[in-house]
Amino acid sequence: MKKTKIGVIGTGRIGKVHTETIAESIPEAEVIAIADINISTAQKLADRFLIRSVSGNYRDVITNPEVDAVLICSPTNTHAQYIIEAAKAGKHIFCEKPIDLDLDTIQNALDAVEEYGVKLMVGFNRRYDSNFKKIKQMVIEGKIGEPHILKITSRDPAPPPPDYIAVSGGMFLDMTIHDFDMARFIVGSEVTEVFAVAGVRIDERIGLAGDVDTAVITLKFENGALGVIDNSRQAVYGYDQRLEIFGSEGMVKVDNNAPDNHDYYSRDGVHSSLPLNFFMDRYIEAYASEIKEFCRAVAEDRPVSVGGKDGLLSVAIGLAAKKSLAAKRPVKVSEVFNGTSHDVNAAHRG
Amino acid sequence: MKKTKIGVIGTGRIGKVHTETIAESIPEAEVIAIADINISTAQKLADRFLIRSVSGNYRDVITNPEVDAVLICSPTNTHAQYIIEAAKAGKHIFCEKPIDLDLDTIQNALDAVEEYGVKLMVGFNRRYDSNFKKIKQMVIEGKIGEPHILKITSRDPAPPPPDYIAVSGGMFLDMTIHDFDMARFIVGSEVTEVFAVAGVRIDERIGLAGDVDTAVITLKFENGALGVIDNSRQAVYGYDQRLEIFGSEGMVKVDNNAPDNHDYYSRDGVHSSLPLNFFMDRYIEAYASEIKEFCRAVAEDRPVSVGGKDGLLSVAIGLAAKKSLAAKRPVKVSEVFNGTSHDVNAAHRG
Amino acid sequence: MKKTKIGVIGTGRIGKVHTETIAESIPEAEVIAIADINISTAQKLADRFLIRSVSGNYRDVITNPEVDAVLICSPTNTHAQYIIEAAKAGKHIFCEKPIDLDLDTIQNALDAVEEYGVKLMVGFNRRYDSNFKKIKQMVIEGKIGEPHILKITSRDPAPPPPDYIAVSGGMFLDMTIHDFDMARFIVGSEVTEVFAVAGVRIDERIGLAGDVDTAVITLKFENGALGVIDNSRQAVYGYDQRLEIFGSEGMVKVDNNAPDNHDYYSRDGVHSSLPLNFFMDRYIEAYASEIKEFCRAVAEDRPVSVGGKDGLLSVAIGLAAKKSLAAKRPVKVSEVFNGTSHDVNAAHRG
Amino acid sequence: MKKTKIGVIGTGRIGKVHTETIAESIPEAEVIAIADINISTAQKLADRFLIRSVSGNYRDVITNPEVDAVLICSPTNTHAQYIIEAAKAGKHIFCEKPIDLDLDTIQNALDAVEEYGVKLMVGFNRRYDSNFKKIKQMVIEGKIGEPHILKITSRDPAPPPPDYIAVSGGMFLDMTIHDFDMARFIVGSEVTEVFAVAGVRIDERIGLAGDVDTAVITLKFENGALGVIDNSRQAVYGYDQRLEIFGSEGMVKVDNNAPDNHDYYSRDGVHSSLPLNFFMDRYIEAYASEIKEFCRAVAEDRPVSVGGKDGLLSVAIGLAAKKSLAAKRPVKVSEVFNGTSHDVNAAHRG
Repeated sequence: MKKTKIGVIGTGRIGKVHTETIAESIPEAEVIAIADINISTAQKLADRFLIRSVSGNYRDVITNPEVDAVLICSPTNTHAQYIIEAAKAGKHIFCEKPIDLDLDTIQNALDAVEEYGVKLMVGFNRRYDSNFKKIKQMVIEGKIGEPHILKITSRDPAPPPPDYIAVSGGMFLDMTIHDFDMARFIVGSEVTEVFAVAGVRIDERIGLAGDVDTAVITLKFENGALGVIDNSRQAVYGYDQRLEIFGSEGMVKVDNNAPDNHDYYSRDGVHSSLPLNFFMDRYIEAYASEIKEFCRAVAEDRPVSVGGKDGLLSVAIGLAAKKSLAAKRPVKVSEVFNGTSHDVNAAHRG
Repeated sequence: MKKTKIGVIGTGRIGKVHTETIAESIPEAEVIAIADINISTAQKLADRFLIRSVSGNYRDVITNPEVDAVLICSPTNTHAQYIIEAAKAGKHIFCEKPIDLDLDTIQNALDAVEEYGVKLMVGFNRRYDSNFKKIKQMVIEGKIGEPHILKITSRDPAPPPPDYIAVSGGMFLDMTIHDFDMARFIVGSEVTEVFAVAGVRIDERIGLAGDVDTAVITLKFENGALGVIDNSRQAVYGYDQRLEIFGSEGMVKVDNNAPDNHDYYSRDGVHSSLPLNFFMDRYIEAYASEIKEFCRAVAEDRPVSVGGKDGLLSVAIGLAAKKSLAAKRPVKVSEVFNGTSHDVNAAHRG
Repeated sequence: MKKTKIGVIGTGRIGKVHTETIAESIPEAEVIAIADINISTAQKLADRFLIRSVSGNYRDVITNPEVDAVLICSPTNTHAQYIIEAAKAGKHIFCEKPIDLDLDTIQNALDAVEEYGVKLMVGFNRRYDSNFKKIKQMVIEGKIGEPHILKITSRDPAPPPPDYIAVSGGMFLDMTIHDFDMARFIVGSEVTEVFAVAGVRIDERIGLAGDVDTAVITLKFENGALGVIDNSRQAVYGYDQRLEIFGSEGMVKVDNNAPDNHDYYSRDGVHSSLPLNFFMDRYIEAYASEIKEFCRAVAEDRPVSVGGKDGLLSVAIGLAAKKSLAAKRPVKVSEVFNGTSHDVNAAHRG
Repeated sequence: MKKTKIGVIGTGRIGKVHTETIAESIPEAEVIAIADINISTAQKLADRFLIRSVSGNYRDVITNPEVDAVLICSPTNTHAQYIIEAAKAGKHIFCEKPIDLDLDTIQNALDAVEEYGVKLMVGFNRRYDSNFKKIKQMVIEGKIGEPHILKITSRDPAPPPPDYIAVSGGMFLDMTIHDFDMARFIVGSEVTEVFAVAGVRIDERIGLAGDVDTAVITLKFENGALGVIDNSRQAVYGYDQRLEIFGSEGMVKVDNNAPDNHDYYSRDGVHSSLPLNFFMDRYIEAYASEIKEFCRAVAEDRPVSVGGKDGLLSVAIGLAAKKSLAAKRPVKVSEVFNGTSHDVNAAHRG
């Protein structure tokens, strides 16, 4: 079997995780080139996994003739440009979320992907979490009948630093974007309208940076389902990631995962373990699964499971949520995105 | 000890429950008079509990000089009038929710209660449920810190008949009203704004009757907390009554109660019991507790715990929700209720 | 309907509970006579429930011609004698467990019951607990197939006073006797052999009184099932009453009941409520159900569900456990009881 | 850093798992030699992980001068001999459980280990399971106070083939041996006496092979604690691995792990996932952890955590259990093992 040759752009936390996964658990692929503007972090990773091509310039990865596919793990504001360049170079692309915070920029990137006939997969890793996958499967099997109400709880253990907040695009595009994607994924229908209420309850510096840290967001779906997402930037008890979907034939919900399942009974009550600490713990297997899925889709030349349309629409919903919050009224997604979001993977599906 | 003498108006399901509770479990009170326009149901209850005064006319209860307090368990549209008459007659009053569907009518009743210096308690029995009481207590003790997000799930096992729907005042005033009261009770702050999305997913006859059967309602509270209620008229798995409150110091949630706590492991999976079937099962102890609380408040001449203001505000929130749904925009509670909702029990608290 | 007239002998804790239950919740029966050597406690109860006949002498209950059935709630060492006298007087009998600590004495009592053709029900109230009833029902329905392994955990929140220990007959006959009955009830087969290991871990005064406070008891059943009971006189976290049965087609287990089902998430972990404190809390509904069952069996003249044989065999197993502990070897139940334990209710079942 | 060079003897299921773990997750070690009498399975593994030395003869691993440590993953009857040869060759040793079924043979192996001053670690992987580790840690921290009662449930999803049963040494030495080790590990005290009851309930061919498939085993510990293990060769609902320890200050228990934590509510009840299927699923991380621990102990020249004494005593308890079952009486461990089980790692601990 010919191994898929992977190039990695950006060797921060997530680039490192993907590189490790491929080296350790995906025999059908190998990382042969990496780049990071901070070349020393790239070099360290290269040394560990015996990767020959190391560079401080992403173009060395994209133009490497041996590379079949690139993983774009660099900062958000570089994603669209790198996608376009990689598409032109005929490389398949895995891009971390979000593709960009601007819908036109995203559309340009997707156009390039379509024009050059490459695959694009967006890093909504939570779709690969065993709990959410189980729910998705049960929804598809009709176990809950017609979906009526979706509830997502998504709370971080601690807010990012104020500096980060300022350039993050705001909580809806930085954090809730995962929940918007999950909502579309689980309900299997498009979000048509968004209403957001929110406030600054955790850290007033977040408010000074023009953002919120606590929110409740109502969603309406094309198929008539209703949804609600609640977010907080700080759950003192840890990373809180739960989902419930209710329908005409039943309800299914998933809880958090914990490091162990002990129950301790003392004079003071019954005690058990807190949820796994943060996304690197909770979703570590999901990260591995999504990269495996991408590598296999490339190797077997089949469509990826999370396409450019998914990357675009989650941003569109996020922008609608921002507009709703500012305008204090429900906002239709069509107010912020009136294009027809053709699925850029459609070409591969024919 | 002198027993408090109780008169019961309306001997339908809930009037019967209260009568039984007093007869069997409240030694400090006794039912001595009952009335129902259907005198035969009243007679049956009287026979069972040896109640001497039975009538087809509610006035015979209200004007009975021996009666200290009346329980108004008749249809909603009679509540306000009976309250006014009972207040004039100097009787303390326990009234099932809602007091009325019209805010002016409610206000008139509360004015009479205040003028004649009697106690009025409204039947928000869920406040006496052991799960919700536990949450309330933990919130008061500061266990969750400042409240940020409240989530209430409230789903009935089956919709009422279409005939009932037509006269019910709509789901928000008939069913969600309990959740509106619970929201105020748990958060300990007033609701200022409501946004409702809803649809007809269970039974199209509900839609033809001008009502909805599935809803997600966002709440904003004076203290900055956000809330969300999700409702369905039909959860095929039974009566679903859950609540969660999240704050700066933690989160507490309660689940449904089940008839037993078995876990059965078979080849097909792990199976356990469904929630208790409906409100008469789930809240049977809460019904008993609220009536005990009322009887004791009368006997000891202390304020009741669920006053006229609580009865009024839950209706006001419900009307705001209806308006929001119709207008497709968030509605401030002050748009539907601009009076100062003085607490009619304030007199007793001084 | 003619009400069954009940006489109560012994108005300590449990006599009081039964009297209340009948007065408040069993319309088809009424307590008309009570006796206690401490006549003042009897008088108090009589005053509360308007019981005319009160005495310091149990014979006044047994010989009362109006009494249909007696509840024997006096100390254990009086049970057998009162049963015999009541049987001679033609009264149906409900007797608290154990009937006696001596098998011959028990057999004499059962003989009298049979001779005079009255009903005898023994107070193994736990059979009426909703959790254990659910398991029993599932076993009968074949949900677990052939039973292979039974596990009972039964731990008290605190040991009784040393004085009580000295006259209790020992932990196996005082406390484990409930578990022996439960084992027979759930497995639906007789215990043939017992092996007990035990020690004094809680309070050395228990050892000085010749008893143990911690034990693990292995059971073999006629149908090939194996069982194990673990006991402690002191679980610092409260009353611990759990059961699990495993068989060829599955396993079912029940957990403790708690006063509420909250889960509190704080920085320190997840916290929930301890089990209900002790038997009066945990089994309060089971006490009511067993007395209802007895009253109905008398009223409808049908066999009781927990007969004299059940009372006898639980003591026989307890004696075998004591012998096993002393002899440090497994002991067959037939070593301590070689009679044929004819079921004294057989007469009523024909 | 110099990598520890590992040789693997036996490339069946477990040898493969350890080889993969070292190759993928333990950068400080590498497998450089493997052997299996079935050389083709060894070759396949070697090809996959680029291992140069492959042989059909285990001696090629033991005598390989580059090898620092060997993993003995061959059939049980070869363990002792290979340990002795490896010890003589100065190699550190990781050996799968059990070392042997004969205590003298084990002792001889341990003597060699001591004589040649090498490390020996025995493969009781469950000690590295996150649930059991959590319990162990809490016991050490004194969270449960003095241990009083230990309960282990250990049930396989399906029995091994009858052929295997015949050469397995019997259920106690093949399956329960893990539970015996876990009992010593958690209680932190030696088992002094064993009493076993058992039967053939799953498959009569197991009985014909002279073995049992269902058992309840009582343990007494030196520190006064009591314990009970229940085993079945077939739980139709999957692999059932639970543990509870109760003491003077509280109780802690752990449940099974499941592939996800969904709860599905339908008309028929509440449904959730069965436990992870079998030991390769449940304990996959524990296998990795134990090998990491061994490699690190070798690299850092510190004592291993599961020594030869642990390997010997679990077999001794198993033999006592077999004797108890045959003799139908409790058997002291000293009846089957009267040597002083000096800890062969003692040398390394000084």
